[in-house]
Amino acid sequence: MQFNDTICAISTAQGMGAIAVIRLSGPESFSICQNIFKPAKKGKVLANEKANTIHFGTIQDKETSIDEVLISLFKNPHSFTGEDIAEIACHGSPYIQQQILQLLIRKGARLATPGEFTQRAFLNGKMDLSQAEAVADLIASRSEAARRVALQQMRGGFSNELVNLRGQLLNFISLVELELDFSEEDVEFANRDELTKLVDNISGLLTKLIKSFSLGNVIKNGIPVAIVGHTNAGKSTLLNTLLQEEKAIVSDIHGTTRDVIEDTINIEGITFRFIDTAGIRETIDKIESLGIERTYSKISKAQIVLLMLDVNDPDDKIHEAITNVKNRMNEGQQLIVVVNKTDLLEDKVVENRFHESSFRELAETDAIVPISAKHHTNIDGLTTELLKTVNLTALDNDEVIVTNARHYEALQKSLEAITRVSEGLTSGISGDFLAQDIREVLHFLGEITGQINTDEVLGNIFKNFCIGK
Amino acid sequence: MQFNDTICAISTAQGMGAIAVIRLSGPESFSICQNIFKPAKKGKVLANEKANTIHFGTIQDKETSIDEVLISLFKNPHSFTGEDIAEIACHGSPYIQQQILQLLIRKGARLATPGEFTQRAFLNGKMDLSQAEAVADLIASRSEAARRVALQQMRGGFSNELVNLRGQLLNFISLVELELDFSEEDVEFANRDELTKLVDNISGLLTKLIKSFSLGNVIKNGIPVAIVGHTNAGKSTLLNTLLQEEKAIVSDIHGTTRDVIEDTINIEGITFRFIDTAGIRETIDKIESLGIERTYSKISKAQIVLLMLDVNDPDDKIHEAITNVKNRMNEGQQLIVVVNKTDLLEDKVVENRFHESSFRELAETDAIVPISAKHHTNIDGLTTELLKTVNLTALDNDEVIVTNARHYEALQKSLEAITRVSEGLTSGISGDFLAQDIREVLHFLGEITGQINTDEVLGNIFKNFCIGK
Repeated sequence: MQFNDTICAISTAQGMGAIAVIRLSGPESFSICQNIFKPAKKGKVLANEKANTIHFGTIQDKETSIDEVLISLFKNPHSFTGEDIAEIACHGSPYIQQQILQLLIRKGARLATPGEFTQRAFLNGKMDLSQAEAVADLIASRSEAARRVALQQMRGGFSNELVNLRGQLLNFISLVELELDFSEEDVEFANRDELTKLVDNISGLLTKLIKSFSLGNVIKNGIPVAIVGHTNAGKSTLLNTLLQEEKAIVSDIHGTTRDVIEDTINIEGITFRFIDTAGIRETIDKIESLGIERTYSKISKAQIVLLMLDVNDPDDKIHEAITNVKNRMNEGQQLIVVVNKTDLLEDKVVENRFHESSFRELAETDAIVPISAKHHTNIDGLTTELLKTVNLTALDNDEVIVTNARHYEALQKSLEAITRVSEGLTSGISGDFLAQDIREVLHFLGEITGQINTDEVLGNIFKNFCIGK
Repeated sequence: MQFNDTICAISTAQGMGAIAVIRLSGPESFSICQNIFKPAKKGKVLANEKANTIHFGTIQDKETSIDEVLISLFKNPHSFTGEDIAEIACHGSPYIQQQILQLLIRKGARLATPGEFTQRAFLNGKMDLSQAEAVADLIASRSEAARRVALQQMRGGFSNELVNLRGQLLNFISLVELELDFSEEDVEFANRDELTKLVDNISGLLTKLIKSFSLGNVIKNGIPVAIVGHTNAGKSTLLNTLLQEEKAIVSDIHGTTRDVIEDTINIEGITFRFIDTAGIRETIDKIESLGIERTYSKISKAQIVLLMLDVNDPDDKIHEAITNVKNRMNEGQQLIVVVNKTDLLEDKVVENRFHESSFRELAETDAIVPISAKHHTNIDGLTTELLKTVNLTALDNDEVIVTNARHYEALQKSLEAITRVSEGLTSGISGDFLAQDIREVLHFLGEITGQINTDEVLGNIFKNFCIGK
């Protein structure tokens, strides 16, 4: 596809920096830049310069010099979008960024919509749709796991195999459809054994990918953890301790930025989102009250419930807290009972407490972790329990992981259709029904990589991008 | 000067963007990048590539791919700092920016201090000190006038003439000091007429530059305006109207950033800072109260006092307001009386009001502007009065304007010293006294351009820079 217009946008983060980058893509990128650029080397013509080179000069609005800039040139088709791209690196004043952007627009460029550069990259065949989606995921990545999975997907790790298998399936359907033309002669161009083998392959891959989504979702969105407990159990101290341990790793480098979102903690590349259950603490014993129901509904959204207890509390208080929380938990949720303030007791005494009747409601799968949040004792034990809820094997083995809900849905539909194909092959249904089921598989697989797409689907995907990408 | 270490920093604005740029400068820039860079073209050696070229590949932390990036190369001495510079353009996730930055530091780069790139540019002789300071001013510029003056200064418009005159003075002093060696022979190597001519030249330039600072200061810091008036006079409506007129110019481009700071309004490239005088409105008539004294002290910081009146208010109320405000104003402050809500009266009636006794306290230099903030009537009249307080002729003529308080101080000291030289020449003082005064002029002039500098001065200047520049 070839676009006639040239788009532009500020590609670096908003606000004041040392420098900012304004990007243009389209057939007029070089000529629009030339129009407002006074090169340091007199007479230089950007369009005649080599690809992947950088040029110093001044942005001019008629006689007025706006800024001294560097312009980088990337030439079609060897660029991100597949079009001619010019990137103007200017001084990072928001005012100057605006002036240059407005000048570009006055000279004929159009302000890009969110994600429009990446959309052009997709429509120009530089990447498939799942790769384009990974670009946004990569930019939004806040943790090691999210970064790693997004980069893998952006580099085609996710779609390569799908495209390959879909291609093989496409060969088969043409043979099956050819049979239909000769239906009265009862010929069989498509080898049913080979087709069965391919269908099994696809089934296996789809099942694996669908299964990976539970991890993928965790990686992309983090694991919701509800902390419940009496006010004095030490919830805030624990959160601060966890945050400190994390910060200790990154903040020894002075002057660096961190996107601090309260109560989001990264442990070994996985994001844990601590849900605010303020209120539950004060009212844990009075579950009849109306407000508390709302608080408990937050527990239902968590994947992990972290019940904080004070080791010094009396037996019945502990027992009641455990019972109340367990009664409110759903299947599939993990309970971690954190017994805090162990520093106040002897190790032996702490150990003995766990054999008391107050803990009798706990199941085998529930974890008990004695800690001292204040003295940072056994925080490792807690993070180990948190990480146990995530199966990270796939991540370590660099397996392909599905993180995108749209892909997940299309994979499920593909699997349903391929299962029908498989059943049809077993029962020996007629070629036209077989072809119809295969067509469906091709459709849903094609949706993932964008071989099948609609303006609506594209619109939904790219509207969530940031401007300038 | 040659530095042994290589510095690095994120040079684009903080937070998430489509892309971000991490900059390295120093002798190891290329080798450190090479160490973590897997070029798309196998075997590519960055140090062997041409200057001003861009290279695609992956940032690697051992076996782990961190991100796909573009690396731009600038070679010493033809770079911003005069050193080898590598700029890594990565995806704009703050997490990824951090990962790459930390990797660079682990591989031997050091995190740059604020302004350290520009400081190196200065110390490596790529620019003088006033140019280096202008880099920060350019990045911080929020208005057309501030941008224009900073760019002019960055390009040497301010220091060229100073350096030239200082050079001539330096020639003379060596001749004067030579005379001292032959003091018993009463020779005169330095032609006193020529020296007098040069001193007059320098005096004239210094006087002009010092004078320009009142405009320069306005351009850099904006003009403080205090709005005073009764609550119902329409202060908020006026501010909104002014903001709207400004926004109408810039916000028709969707999705662009503006650093909105409440009550800062740009008129024809000049920033007006509206000082919050909340409280004065309610208590304008009760000046005895303690709180009001604090509010009136804000008036004293303003350059313009904008007294808002309601044209429908009774004569004595208007008169009292004018008297109270005028009593509190200092010499040099400009009073603009804005008479609002003229839409409610006939033009003729409005005109007549101004001849009433209530306005009798106003002086010739005070301005009266009838407006309707609500109907946007005569807002032009008001902005014209505001702009009248600034003499923009120098700006229009692209004259050199001093905006920096440090330069202003050094210029004043230079002028004092050169005046002593001039007086000494007239009275025919001895060569050694003359030489001493000339040395002082050389010192203060040298401080401006950095030919004379101390670590302390440099530290003070660069600590206010942003990181990455």
